[in-house]
Amino acid sequence: MTGSGLGREMYALVERLYPLCRSITGDGVRATLDIVGEYVPLEIHEVPTGTQVLDWTVPQEWNIRDAYIADATGRRVVDFAASSLHVLGYSVPVAATMPLAELRPHLHTLPDHPDWVPYRTSYYRPTWGFCLSQNTLDALPEGDYEVRIDSTLADGHLTYAEHVVPGEVPDEVIVSSHVCHPSLANDNLAGIAVATHLARALAEQNPYYTYRFIYAPGTIGALTWLARNADRIDRIKHGLVLACAGDPGQLTYKKSRRGDAEIDRVMRHVLAASERPHHIKEFTPYGYDERQYCSPGFDLGVGSLSRTPYAGYPEYHTSADNLDFVSPDAMADTLALCREAFALLDRNRSYLNLSPYGEPQLGRRGLYDALGGRSDTQEAQLAMLWVLSLSDGKHSLLDVAERADLPFDTVALAARALRDAGLIKA
Amino acid sequence: MTGSGLGREMYALVERLYPLCRSITGDGVRATLDIVGEYVPLEIHEVPTGTQVLDWTVPQEWNIRDAYIADATGRRVVDFAASSLHVLGYSVPVAATMPLAELRPHLHTLPDHPDWVPYRTSYYRPTWGFCLSQNTLDALPEGDYEVRIDSTLADGHLTYAEHVVPGEVPDEVIVSSHVCHPSLANDNLAGIAVATHLARALAEQNPYYTYRFIYAPGTIGALTWLARNADRIDRIKHGLVLACAGDPGQLTYKKSRRGDAEIDRVMRHVLAASERPHHIKEFTPYGYDERQYCSPGFDLGVGSLSRTPYAGYPEYHTSADNLDFVSPDAMADTLALCREAFALLDRNRSYLNLSPYGEPQLGRRGLYDALGGRSDTQEAQLAMLWVLSLSDGKHSLLDVAERADLPFDTVALAARALRDAGLIKA
Amino acid sequence: MTGSGLGREMYALVERLYPLCRSITGDGVRATLDIVGEYVPLEIHEVPTGTQVLDWTVPQEWNIRDAYIADATGRRVVDFAASSLHVLGYSVPVAATMPLAELRPHLHTLPDHPDWVPYRTSYYRPTWGFCLSQNTLDALPEGDYEVRIDSTLADGHLTYAEHVVPGEVPDEVIVSSHVCHPSLANDNLAGIAVATHLARALAEQNPYYTYRFIYAPGTIGALTWLARNADRIDRIKHGLVLACAGDPGQLTYKKSRRGDAEIDRVMRHVLAASERPHHIKEFTPYGYDERQYCSPGFDLGVGSLSRTPYAGYPEYHTSADNLDFVSPDAMADTLALCREAFALLDRNRSYLNLSPYGEPQLGRRGLYDALGGRSDTQEAQLAMLWVLSLSDGKHSLLDVAERADLPFDTVALAARALRDAGLIKA
Repeated sequence: MTGSGLGREMYALVERLYPLCRSITGDGVRATLDIVGEYVPLEIHEVPTGTQVLDWTVPQEWNIRDAYIADATGRRVVDFAASSLHVLGYSVPVAATMPLAELRPHLHTLPDHPDWVPYRTSYYRPTWGFCLSQNTLDALPEGDYEVRIDSTLADGHLTYAEHVVPGEVPDEVIVSSHVCHPSLANDNLAGIAVATHLARALAEQNPYYTYRFIYAPGTIGALTWLARNADRIDRIKHGLVLACAGDPGQLTYKKSRRGDAEIDRVMRHVLAASERPHHIKEFTPYGYDERQYCSPGFDLGVGSLSRTPYAGYPEYHTSADNLDFVSPDAMADTLALCREAFALLDRNRSYLNLSPYGEPQLGRRGLYDALGGRSDTQEAQLAMLWVLSLSDGKHSLLDVAERADLPFDTVALAARALRDAGLIKA
Repeated sequence: MTGSGLGREMYALVERLYPLCRSITGDGVRATLDIVGEYVPLEIHEVPTGTQVLDWTVPQEWNIRDAYIADATGRRVVDFAASSLHVLGYSVPVAATMPLAELRPHLHTLPDHPDWVPYRTSYYRPTWGFCLSQNTLDALPEGDYEVRIDSTLADGHLTYAEHVVPGEVPDEVIVSSHVCHPSLANDNLAGIAVATHLARALAEQNPYYTYRFIYAPGTIGALTWLARNADRIDRIKHGLVLACAGDPGQLTYKKSRRGDAEIDRVMRHVLAASERPHHIKEFTPYGYDERQYCSPGFDLGVGSLSRTPYAGYPEYHTSADNLDFVSPDAMADTLALCREAFALLDRNRSYLNLSPYGEPQLGRRGLYDALGGRSDTQEAQLAMLWVLSLSDGKHSLLDVAERADLPFDTVALAARALRDAGLIKA
Repeated sequence: MTGSGLGREMYALVERLYPLCRSITGDGVRATLDIVGEYVPLEIHEVPTGTQVLDWTVPQEWNIRDAYIADATGRRVVDFAASSLHVLGYSVPVAATMPLAELRPHLHTLPDHPDWVPYRTSYYRPTWGFCLSQNTLDALPEGDYEVRIDSTLADGHLTYAEHVVPGEVPDEVIVSSHVCHPSLANDNLAGIAVATHLARALAEQNPYYTYRFIYAPGTIGALTWLARNADRIDRIKHGLVLACAGDPGQLTYKKSRRGDAEIDRVMRHVLAASERPHHIKEFTPYGYDERQYCSPGFDLGVGSLSRTPYAGYPEYHTSADNLDFVSPDAMADTLALCREAFALLDRNRSYLNLSPYGEPQLGRRGLYDALGGRSDTQEAQLAMLWVLSLSDGKHSLLDVAERADLPFDTVALAARALRDAGLIKA
């Protein structure tokens, strides 16, 4: 499938997921994972309310069927059926009639963007509320309004899913996307779509690493996954949080807490080599679930890839993060970058020169000819000399490529030829 | 007391100390310490002549009552009573009459500054001499002159003093000022005055560290202190040499020999954060008593704070370093910077996150509210996340502030809140 | 002898060596070493064909007496007697008559430089060929040509030589020059000449290190030397490959693989201090025999000094690298730089301050006077303080000079005075 074909397919997935009312628990997450499961097989995990996960506790499950504010004539002036954003996430049920003055403290707007509806939640403090545009609010006459939120907060489960692309080795790369946001296209349906198609692409390549895709609610979902996988965390060698993957902005990579993890170097190298305009940001303990993966007890080599990053665009956490804000091309571009990065990461190993005293005689082994007849023969031979020179167990192929100022692919091909000739070993 | 009030009080102390004839030993040092002792209680140490101190020996004590050069009419053309600078420090006694030609080799002037009297000493080579202005010398007719120096060089003592501000821990910060220079205001009466008022300010704050103020003659005094405290040197965690603290120049911090000692980072940070124009200089083994504290056997984290540094101004070691050369405002500014620096140093500790696996749930502990209601709530919360992220025992709060690009105070307040909540420990 | 006198003497040596037909084995190498042996005594090594040297095998010895292409009239249109470059190095013998069309694949020219004859070899693939100018080739009419190469490829020996300048310690500095190129003046007769006169100069100075000069064929010769000296490689502390030492370009130093070896720092310092325009290049595993000395198993601190470096000039490996391309002045300049560098390296040691607690009393030991009476007294005293400060076993005198921003000679003189006074020891 072409890049733009993949872009359109990812966009179609975003369109299907967009209307669902997701939260950190509940049936909206399940419905989302059901749809993703049509693209890649998912293992679904249901974790009961009250389960201790690290410093946190899995909360009650929230579900909602209907919610509205109706005026004296019975007309619904704010209606959950029109957008899942209209209800404050995790609102407790309410059924009452009250004057506008009493209702106002429960109404959330964006005065600076009077047409937009904000996205708000209150997961851990029981309350209720509605989100609406400033214009809608301004048009409401004083008087009594019927307020109804038909939600339930009850013992249930937190739901997350995993998809594994098996590799040659049990060492894992995780790709994590949050699935808890309601009708917000860029944050994070685009991330979910790119992750899903990345998984499909990797499966076709028999990768070296085992790739584990995690679809989980933000914060509490990642914490739950970490708590349940604490005894196998040392398998996680690298990772990437995917979010805000479809907006028109430049690609942005945010480094892991370590700052010099292999994934950090790979992303920096691939973004630079791709000649895409892009940004590299230092780690901050604020943002998406890299906060949890990079907490000092785990300190995993997990970075975060976005286009415009967390909270970096006016449409962020508003109704303007809609299907017009994301594009097939942007998602295809994000996916392409991920594939380039993982193609490099997957081949980036350190080798040991088995003939380290002086140069081995390459000609005798046909290693000049092995790569001869190509216009880049001289570069290929230089790459072999570099790989031999730096294969002391302390330098990866990426180190070689950067020190030699040669394309990684050239270096990786040289390493393969040398390995096949028995001159180096991993 | 306001900054300018403190400035005037420091200036008044300088005025009182200015006329005294100090040297590396003798009653001038004792009189100086008596006056300083009116401001802060001092422990006076008297170390006998001949005492071995490291590679050196405490010299004979020098005292002087009178000295002059008188012309044939008996008029004193150079008179110690007018300025303690007029006699070469440590001059042996002399009482003679000699022609000007014979006297000349004993006369020191500054031809480039014909109005100024130089400051000269000869501690370890027995000789005598006078310092006078070039103009005075040029006005002397040939002829015989009566020369008299009524000094004594005899077994006695070297005098130094200490003042301790007790802290929570026995770990010490030393603040060292040299007290051996005669009537030179900036070098080092201003340093003595700033040190003394710094001690008073620290005492009001129940500091974490124990602060030890050392008032000692340059070189031999610092060596004596080091020799007598060799077995407790490992208590000295940080230190500052204060000198030339009152001139109109910019603040200058000279790093310790280590170059990356905590005091070096603290001073650099505070100077930068204060937005004062300032200079940071690398260590050189030349200057004030940081030479001794930073000698490779001790290698203490001791830097040096001046305004215009050692030998960096024309008035240096001349009669022009007088009461007009220093100002209340300059001393108040130096004192303020010292207080800012020690306020930071005193709180700059490394913490250990006691809940390092994932983020702890701050909301449950009221840590959002703990700092809520303030305009800087968001910065305070970010600071808590940064402290949690970097509290791995390897990062100090200053590391956190610099990496997070947050004010140190914000970070320190966040750390206190987290510590009070049992989430981190020192 | 003056610099220009030495330059003329080196040039005369290049002139004598120029006509000889050198290769990686054979009598041309022996004749070359005979002539060099007139300047410095050489130990000649003959290593039999078939000897295993690391991953390689010493090849058969190649000798050549005559070679030509003659036209139908018997006129020699290409004649080995005119230049040793005319025969492809290691050509197998041939005696045949063939049409030009059949001969063409064996003819090597430089179309971009139609007057020049290229230098070509085929050491490890048996073939034969001639090198000639494009103009000569273009002038050849079609027709039959007599082709004759009177060479032998037979079991024999590989020849290399060593000259040792003994030092105070058995630790060695190697200086290596390749001796396998035929009539090419810069590459590497100039290197041979500079190495030889460097050896003579060092012998006059009773150096600290033992200096070993290696004259060996490129690649296989260096590999042979390494193979035969594997058990004493740890004596080699520093080294320099000398090549292309006589052309008009700027001096170029190529760092060792380590990049921060002492020789790298010394060369960088000396080149900068000399204020010569120059280039410093990072290591690459391509070039001269630093490839072998720096292979990861040995990883010696061996850099490479050239004027215009390897393959960096159009005349490289052509008949234009002739006696006009090199000059006495350029060789004298290269030699002078080598002498400056080794004079520094030879004195660059780390000392231990034997009186590290506080400053030792220099005056008591006459160390102010020891260096007094000179215009640079103050610099000399500062150098003593710096040496004392940094003589903690972790800093070399070069470290001191660079940190203090003082001339190395001043620092070395200060260290000698302090050592003589018993204040520091090596």
